[in-house]
Amino acid sequence: MKQTDLEKLLADMSLKEKVDQMLQLSGAFYLGDENSVLTGPANDMGIGKEDLEMAGSILGAAGADTMKKLQDDYMAKQPHHIPMLFMMDVIHGMKTIFPAPLAQGATFDPELSGECASAAAKEASAAGLHVTFSPMVDLVRDARWGRVVESTGEDPYLNSRFSEAIVKGFQGDDLKTPGKVASCIKHFAGYGGAVAGRDYNTVELSEHTFREFYLPAYKAGIDAGAAMVMTSFNTINGVPASTNKWLMRDILRGEMGFDGVLISDFAAILETVAHRSSKDAADAAKKALEAGVDIDMMTSVYAANLCRLVEEGEVDEHLIDECCLRILELKNKLGLFENPYKDADAEKEKAYNLCPEHRALAKKAAEESFVLLKNDGVLPLDTAKKIAFVGPYTNNHEIKSSWSFTGDSKDCVTIQEAAEKVFDASRTTYAEGCPVIGNDVELIGFTETTPKKYSEEELAAMEQSALQAAKEADLVVMPMGEHYLQSGEATSRAMIDVPEIQMELFRKVLAVNPNVVVVLFNGRPLDLREISAKAKAILEVWFPGTEGGSAVVDVLTGKKNPSGHLPMSFPYCVGQAPVSYNEYSTGRPNLPGMKERFRSKYLDIPNAPLYPFGYGLSYTTFAVSDVVLDQNEMDKNGRIAAKVTVKNTGDAAGCEVVQLYIRDDYSDVVRPVKELKGFRKVELAPGEEQEVTFYITEEDLRYYRLDGTFGSEPGTFTVMIGNSSTTENSAVFTLK
Amino acid sequence: MKQTDLEKLLADMSLKEKVDQMLQLSGAFYLGDENSVLTGPANDMGIGKEDLEMAGSILGAAGADTMKKLQDDYMAKQPHHIPMLFMMDVIHGMKTIFPAPLAQGATFDPELSGECASAAAKEASAAGLHVTFSPMVDLVRDARWGRVVESTGEDPYLNSRFSEAIVKGFQGDDLKTPGKVASCIKHFAGYGGAVAGRDYNTVELSEHTFREFYLPAYKAGIDAGAAMVMTSFNTINGVPASTNKWLMRDILRGEMGFDGVLISDFAAILETVAHRSSKDAADAAKKALEAGVDIDMMTSVYAANLCRLVEEGEVDEHLIDECCLRILELKNKLGLFENPYKDADAEKEKAYNLCPEHRALAKKAAEESFVLLKNDGVLPLDTAKKIAFVGPYTNNHEIKSSWSFTGDSKDCVTIQEAAEKVFDASRTTYAEGCPVIGNDVELIGFTETTPKKYSEEELAAMEQSALQAAKEADLVVMPMGEHYLQSGEATSRAMIDVPEIQMELFRKVLAVNPNVVVVLFNGRPLDLREISAKAKAILEVWFPGTEGGSAVVDVLTGKKNPSGHLPMSFPYCVGQAPVSYNEYSTGRPNLPGMKERFRSKYLDIPNAPLYPFGYGLSYTTFAVSDVVLDQNEMDKNGRIAAKVTVKNTGDAAGCEVVQLYIRDDYSDVVRPVKELKGFRKVELAPGEEQEVTFYITEEDLRYYRLDGTFGSEPGTFTVMIGNSSTTENSAVFTLK
Repeated sequence: MKQTDLEKLLADMSLKEKVDQMLQLSGAFYLGDENSVLTGPANDMGIGKEDLEMAGSILGAAGADTMKKLQDDYMAKQPHHIPMLFMMDVIHGMKTIFPAPLAQGATFDPELSGECASAAAKEASAAGLHVTFSPMVDLVRDARWGRVVESTGEDPYLNSRFSEAIVKGFQGDDLKTPGKVASCIKHFAGYGGAVAGRDYNTVELSEHTFREFYLPAYKAGIDAGAAMVMTSFNTINGVPASTNKWLMRDILRGEMGFDGVLISDFAAILETVAHRSSKDAADAAKKALEAGVDIDMMTSVYAANLCRLVEEGEVDEHLIDECCLRILELKNKLGLFENPYKDADAEKEKAYNLCPEHRALAKKAAEESFVLLKNDGVLPLDTAKKIAFVGPYTNNHEIKSSWSFTGDSKDCVTIQEAAEKVFDASRTTYAEGCPVIGNDVELIGFTETTPKKYSEEELAAMEQSALQAAKEADLVVMPMGEHYLQSGEATSRAMIDVPEIQMELFRKVLAVNPNVVVVLFNGRPLDLREISAKAKAILEVWFPGTEGGSAVVDVLTGKKNPSGHLPMSFPYCVGQAPVSYNEYSTGRPNLPGMKERFRSKYLDIPNAPLYPFGYGLSYTTFAVSDVVLDQNEMDKNGRIAAKVTVKNTGDAAGCEVVQLYIRDDYSDVVRPVKELKGFRKVELAPGEEQEVTFYITEEDLRYYRLDGTFGSEPGTFTVMIGNSSTTENSAVFTLK
Repeated sequence: MKQTDLEKLLADMSLKEKVDQMLQLSGAFYLGDENSVLTGPANDMGIGKEDLEMAGSILGAAGADTMKKLQDDYMAKQPHHIPMLFMMDVIHGMKTIFPAPLAQGATFDPELSGECASAAAKEASAAGLHVTFSPMVDLVRDARWGRVVESTGEDPYLNSRFSEAIVKGFQGDDLKTPGKVASCIKHFAGYGGAVAGRDYNTVELSEHTFREFYLPAYKAGIDAGAAMVMTSFNTINGVPASTNKWLMRDILRGEMGFDGVLISDFAAILETVAHRSSKDAADAAKKALEAGVDIDMMTSVYAANLCRLVEEGEVDEHLIDECCLRILELKNKLGLFENPYKDADAEKEKAYNLCPEHRALAKKAAEESFVLLKNDGVLPLDTAKKIAFVGPYTNNHEIKSSWSFTGDSKDCVTIQEAAEKVFDASRTTYAEGCPVIGNDVELIGFTETTPKKYSEEELAAMEQSALQAAKEADLVVMPMGEHYLQSGEATSRAMIDVPEIQMELFRKVLAVNPNVVVVLFNGRPLDLREISAKAKAILEVWFPGTEGGSAVVDVLTGKKNPSGHLPMSFPYCVGQAPVSYNEYSTGRPNLPGMKERFRSKYLDIPNAPLYPFGYGLSYTTFAVSDVVLDQNEMDKNGRIAAKVTVKNTGDAAGCEVVQLYIRDDYSDVVRPVKELKGFRKVELAPGEEQEVTFYITEEDLRYYRLDGTFGSEPGTFTVMIGNSSTTENSAVFTLK
């Protein structure tokens, strides 16, 4: 449809019809019996038959045939036969589940995440979906916050690269292209900064930190063409994001130039009443509309109030026209006016879901995401040895992580399933040892409450057979870690430990066999002090998704050499949170070797995290040469080439993540001690070396200045290139 | 001297002479041999003979005779015979040490702190001092930060009341008055907000939080007439406080109207170079001067650079004149031009120091500061019973806390010393049990490094006699807690536990005697989960100062009924930090009884701290009646009387702290769930009751609005009156 036709359509729509475009309802309202829905939940919400017939989008229904029928039924009733938008949380996979976003961050391979998004889009669009609520690009520094698993980590630059790659993976160049879905950047903005890591809590950030650290990844996704943006639950500068006019009109629409659809997070407009920042639902609706929020997710706050507010002269209908037009434009960009089913196709659905290509991609992504945190020479495994797999993730299908309800845990390959194909059964044993969490821990999922309770006898039997297996083995592999319901939304933890029941098993296993390799499943950085001190090796595998077990086995055996690097600091302990490598310089830095009292430090722990951002080992070793700059001065239009040679100095082929950090040596505004400004993955055969060149331009040196503009200032800058954020391999240049 | 004479004097001074007024040097430079000083430390700093002869102030020397001679020598050389300012950290006492500031916060009795300040001023001024760096009024929410002990707590209103009372206590109405010293509000501003509780770390605050929570206590001190303000070490909005023109010119001088002397914290101007926000010392000097910082504490950054910068046209001499004049004005306010010794008087020094009146005041302040956290009926002690005092604070003189180096630990009364006068020797035993910290803990003081190392045999013997004593007693009192060097400046702790060596003793004592009363010494909220679960009673005594032991004994025996209430939340565990009662409302509050997943909460701990702000028990009980308002509507010029009746419903006379909280039920800007707006200490005999009336005016309802002004908005407000921040005893009124 042409833009002028859209505008004509808009002009022809009734106020109620326009307002209902801004309403998003649950698929349940359409898949159930209409009459029972209307006498039940919809009625409770203040949603009438008319709203059901005209709601602009639905959330949480999928399946090609279902969606076609639903679209047909809907369009038949909708006064202008405007098609409905189908949205769903397809976050890291539809049926084929890719590693959790934090794991994907560890790949330092945004293109690979783009491929995962593209595969997910194929599965999702075949199932009739038009929009997915991904990527989440919130910057995260506090391991207590459960949603860190949904982010790609603590770095603005890394997050930005993933943000744009994932948007492009979902959307391609044209939303009409078969197999593409619209991408929604979330959560705008600053949601990751929740005070004390408690989900939905207030965010406290100075404006320069907010702009320099938190906003870039949203901007990158918007620049990559993201069709939609979602508001966040938190307040920013005292006002909830969903009713924050400054944030949405001035920054998002004005400064960032976003002209797509802005959707609230789940009930977030209405929840500004709980914030006590809106008087009531009507006031919330008015404020959100004035802030330019186009769609109200899953409440009736718009549908039940906006018409009346217009009629009473409380809000300007023009604002509703703006929102409605943006929604119509999105439908048009998706080609729905011409092809309301988009790519819904039951045959394709069957062909794409969990197809070998997607499984292979999921396996590759998982392998690339694993981070070898420690290795005292026991990895890769010597398969000639007697090996016991002991731990609750040995044969556990629940390795999909949060926001993967479209997939089925049963489709996940467990470690045991994969290992049985590779390891000699006569030398290999498998034992759960204990459940993931003890009977005392209660966790609430979307639909279920865990855990299964175990009797004392069951627990004793599990433990006994595990310890027997451990004792008889040459080496014990312990797949252990957090429960999948311990990370994700509303899963803040004040203690970031591996569940105590597993730590007890770990200690008992160690007592009978000191050769322990820990394979760690988790959705957040954990306190690994004890495991780090006692295990011979630690392989961080996060929540690896559908092909998790096979990826773990290939990495453990050395078929695949691990190359993941941490996208988020693993704090020394929870008392260090929030922590990130790119902290601001203080006036009393605690430099190495200092023994002075009056330094910025703790009495009882180091300032450095246990495992820093950018860190990750390999089965081989790499040497990074001195940094060579092609010139040591540059003007504002110039470019400096910073070069190192990376050499594989070990015996195995492997892949290194070469990282470029820059420090602004002096600035009016206090700047970070270093900032990631580039990275490159380099694959090298043993003995092989390769030059890696990063090009630095003035744009890389910009920051949010005292006058409220982004720009650079002349002076010296230190370039650091290495394989972790702790690198001190450096050279200096001057910006003139 | 008249103002016009001061200005004439200024006009007659050379540039160098003016700049040197802005220099503060250590007393060591004057008390040592001048020649050796000049070839040593002063020379290293770039300080010449001329600077020594003209430096405007010195830090860290005291003693009437010394100071008189020093002033004589100095004035003889100073070209205009301008007297020198003598400054020192007299924070919570000079020779008589009053409880640490956090303990004073627990008294909820600012007037009492004013009396302590007044007594300290008498001792300090007799010793020749003119200025003290107190009060510290930084708002604190993070128990990890070591300097919480120097603050009066987490509440802007409570801090403000202490701020003004302490300023008035030190200064009186006229600085010339004998026995008064100038007071310095510190640290401006926001220093308490250090990220992750790490001292000197960056502060991240939104402007509305900064203005509403952090600034009021500074403002209260300034309004009370504080002669001086000290800059803070942290950055605020990206710029170190000491070079932050917006903070110092716009807010401090402009909005707050402060016209006194602004001094940097120790070397803080120079340290902006380490922040990498000043290019070098000269740049730092220029920026600090432009921000209007009058005195550079303890470096040569002003003295060595400003003259040259003026000569080179880099800075305007007028700025130096401004600073110098403010310093001269302070000297004049103190009457130094007429009486350069001020109150230095060796006789008075002797008479005031540790005089019975001051000791009695110290005891009273200590008693009022103690907070009874738990009492299962074992307190007050039944002195007919066999009682064992077991723990490292049983006979420990180191109970002065941080910033009390002017006092002598030997002058402190220990618990044992006081108990021996009260308890029957035949039924009472005393045993240290263990040292305060284990051999593995190293702590650095100002001059010493601790601890003394104990041999295994010594440790075993200490423990054995303690356990023997515990076993034979009916009841065990355990004076235990943090080492005094574990709180104060540069003492951030990532773990806020009682030292493990003492927890082991605690468990072993419990194993032989379950009747344990813990008397807790500490400079910050600690993780008390285990002690709280197992001890029969807990008496929080902080660091109580000179008369600590006698106060503890009088409270334990019931001679004095405890009435302190917490000025800072005791977090459930460190993973809850930062936490405060006056948090902002979220959109998903986790209200009592809720079992929903998607709430702002932790999976593993409650949102509530273990012991909340305002909490404190008594040996008696109090009933607070329903809140009665004299009207339920008020206009902007009106006043509402909120009344309760408080009744002593127990058997002992006692004192209750009645607290008034107000919640703005609705506001454009998200507001705290409640805010302290008044408190009253009420002393009641058994059965006695008393009406307590709080008057609420529009001023109490103001907040920092979206338009950047402070003001109130019409609507309903909930008034809560009770004896802790958790009170729900409420009534509602409407502001028209």
